[in-house]
Amino acid sequence: MKFELQHIDTKTNARAGVITTDHGTIETPIFMPVGTAGSVKAVHQRELAEDIKAQIILGNTYHLYLRPGLNILEQAGGLHRFNGWTRPILTDSGGFQVFSLSENRKLKEEGAHFRSHIDGSKHLFTPENVVDIQRIIGADIMMAFDECTPGTADYDYAKKSMELTHRWLERGLRRFSDSDPKYGYLQAFFPIVQGCVYPDLRRQSAEFIAKQNQAGNAIGGLAVGEPTEKMYEMIEVVNEILPKDRPRYLMGVGTPANILEAIERGVDMFDCVMPTRNGRNGMIFTSNGIMNMKNEKWKSDFSPLDAAGTSYVDSFYSKAYVRHLFVSQEFLAMQIASIHNLAFYLNLVKEARQHIMEGDFANWKARMVKQTMQRL
Amino acid sequence: MKFELQHIDTKTNARAGVITTDHGTIETPIFMPVGTAGSVKAVHQRELAEDIKAQIILGNTYHLYLRPGLNILEQAGGLHRFNGWTRPILTDSGGFQVFSLSENRKLKEEGAHFRSHIDGSKHLFTPENVVDIQRIIGADIMMAFDECTPGTADYDYAKKSMELTHRWLERGLRRFSDSDPKYGYLQAFFPIVQGCVYPDLRRQSAEFIAKQNQAGNAIGGLAVGEPTEKMYEMIEVVNEILPKDRPRYLMGVGTPANILEAIERGVDMFDCVMPTRNGRNGMIFTSNGIMNMKNEKWKSDFSPLDAAGTSYVDSFYSKAYVRHLFVSQEFLAMQIASIHNLAFYLNLVKEARQHIMEGDFANWKARMVKQTMQRL
Ligand SMILES: [Zn+2]
Ligand SMILES: [Zn+2]
Repeated sequence: MKFELQHIDTKTNARAGVITTDHGTIETPIFMPVGTAGSVKAVHQRELAEDIKAQIILGNTYHLYLRPGLNILEQAGGLHRFNGWTRPILTDSGGFQVFSLSENRKLKEEGAHFRSHIDGSKHLFTPENVVDIQRIIGADIMMAFDECTPGTADYDYAKKSMELTHRWLERGLRRFSDSDPKYGYLQAFFPIVQGCVYPDLRRQSAEFIAKQNQAGNAIGGLAVGEPTEKMYEMIEVVNEILPKDRPRYLMGVGTPANILEAIERGVDMFDCVMPTRNGRNGMIFTSNGIMNMKNEKWKSDFSPLDAAGTSYVDSFYSKAYVRHLFVSQEFLAMQIASIHNLAFYLNLVKEARQHIMEGDFANWKARMVKQTMQRL
Repeated sequence: MKFELQHIDTKTNARAGVITTDHGTIETPIFMPVGTAGSVKAVHQRELAEDIKAQIILGNTYHLYLRPGLNILEQAGGLHRFNGWTRPILTDSGGFQVFSLSENRKLKEEGAHFRSHIDGSKHLFTPENVVDIQRIIGADIMMAFDECTPGTADYDYAKKSMELTHRWLERGLRRFSDSDPKYGYLQAFFPIVQGCVYPDLRRQSAEFIAKQNQAGNAIGGLAVGEPTEKMYEMIEVVNEILPKDRPRYLMGVGTPANILEAIERGVDMFDCVMPTRNGRNGMIFTSNGIMNMKNEKWKSDFSPLDAAGTSYVDSFYSKAYVRHLFVSQEFLAMQIASIHNLAFYLNLVKEARQHIMEGDFANWKARMVKQTMQRL
């Protein structure tokens, strides 16, 4: 994996760059749709590529490990071959899901013991086997196994948790350098900064992560219960330290405004279930604000779903029709909302990139943060 | 509406023709995907047109009347404008749903009183207002209000029910000729033959229907609990009487084999929820037989979903991947199965048409009936 920094904004820390992987290039800043179990929910792979214009998608190691399982994935020749997505894939390390989804989880020095949320079967994730699993999935970018410290943790817990994440990182990196890709293309490995909302821990963690000299770096443990202002502050603290010539990935964030604020602070990569999950619930993000499609208000509004939208669903379907589909609990409602929201997110980061290149990011961003968070 | 009979098979009663409506032409025999509430479940309108190659879709009057309701549909300018489907639409009369879905229904001479299955509200469908409703929906082909006699009804009940359907037909036809289309294009009105499994009732009903001299005629009350052989027998009895120069629509049928048998007996139009409903449950119809995609058997079968299939999902997705999606209850599973099954049904009737035109329908049909009903 290669990262070329093309432009740094003069007034902010926003950056435009290009990541090159063996499955193609990614223009940053970028948003990655979440394809939990090897499918971005309610969206065809063709729609992802052609309508949403996704450049990279994310897979969840925890889900893929449980289903379809490593045996199937290895026989398929990796996730790309299995699901037909030929562009880059990033996988998380499964740590977050072990703590949010699994049952009876126990954190030990060696790793995390847990029971599957599907069938109760017992499993162990370690920093090493999580590398092995991601080798089998065949992600272009693999993530280190970490403990995602809750945003409300006290200092002592946060420190111990961060130190565990650092020890796990060293073990993961050893396995990473001792192992090879399985399918003939290269895989990168991103370490993750933790440290909760404590600036000195975040600094300490960022320094530890920076010196591992990996192809890219991630910021974890944010948007997990802490105040939003704390999140922005931690991004600033961390990005002062993380190397400028490597992409920075802010995990699990967020709203359009969160993403723009983080781009301004030097973040390059994002993922979040919000556009798909909230979309399936009727929430439509647009450049003029947020619509709840179940609202009575749209009942006889036959104007296009989003006149400023970039995907075909925006002009093909009307607000009244989409409202009818949501009220009638038709599957198509979720399909339309997922395509629309993902296309909106992808277009938002594309526009951010253009404004960074053109040098007027700050003004545009200030306006968009306001506009996108309005309730329509 | 116009019907041009292009070819009648020499060995069977199979026919090829073209229906012309103000929303375009329909090559018969044809299968009509069911778009209950103005959406074919889990399928985009674009996919219906381009991937499935549907020429006409069906809407359910009962559902559309309850949601979005006549007010919205009229404001939209009819269903075509509301859902963006620009090709022909046929609507049923709502009778079948009143008896299968609604609560507290009461059949009277005037019509059917019922309570909505959605909110319990009280409604009355009459032969007249069902014409008015379909005028507002704006279907290219409207259906007469009938009682769909259960396939297990005794002779007395079936006779009374048929006679009621005939009286209702006369009332419906009067309203049809006393009213005008609302949106500037023509609407046809199909009467429905009833008579359960009793040949003399079917004959009597077919004669009554034939003499109404409408643009097309339908056969109702089949595939509703009677033995399959009885269904075929009734189709034969009825099609001896229904005019040859008008399309014949067999309502709510059926499996690929049912459709081929009915085509052989001179039926031109079909609709059924089977390809979509069974598809959403994991049943995939192919020219070589039926697959249950939840089956362990497909676990590591990385061959295309249907190598002989005509839609892009058939070659893009593998059996193993689709199985994984069904097992993981991913929405995409239902989307893929719906596109595949509908494209298969549409291609089946298209091939039937070609074989009718080429004069070798009988042999092809005999082979396909066997092949398509195998369990893979
Ligand atoms: Zn998120
Ligand atoms: Zn059916």
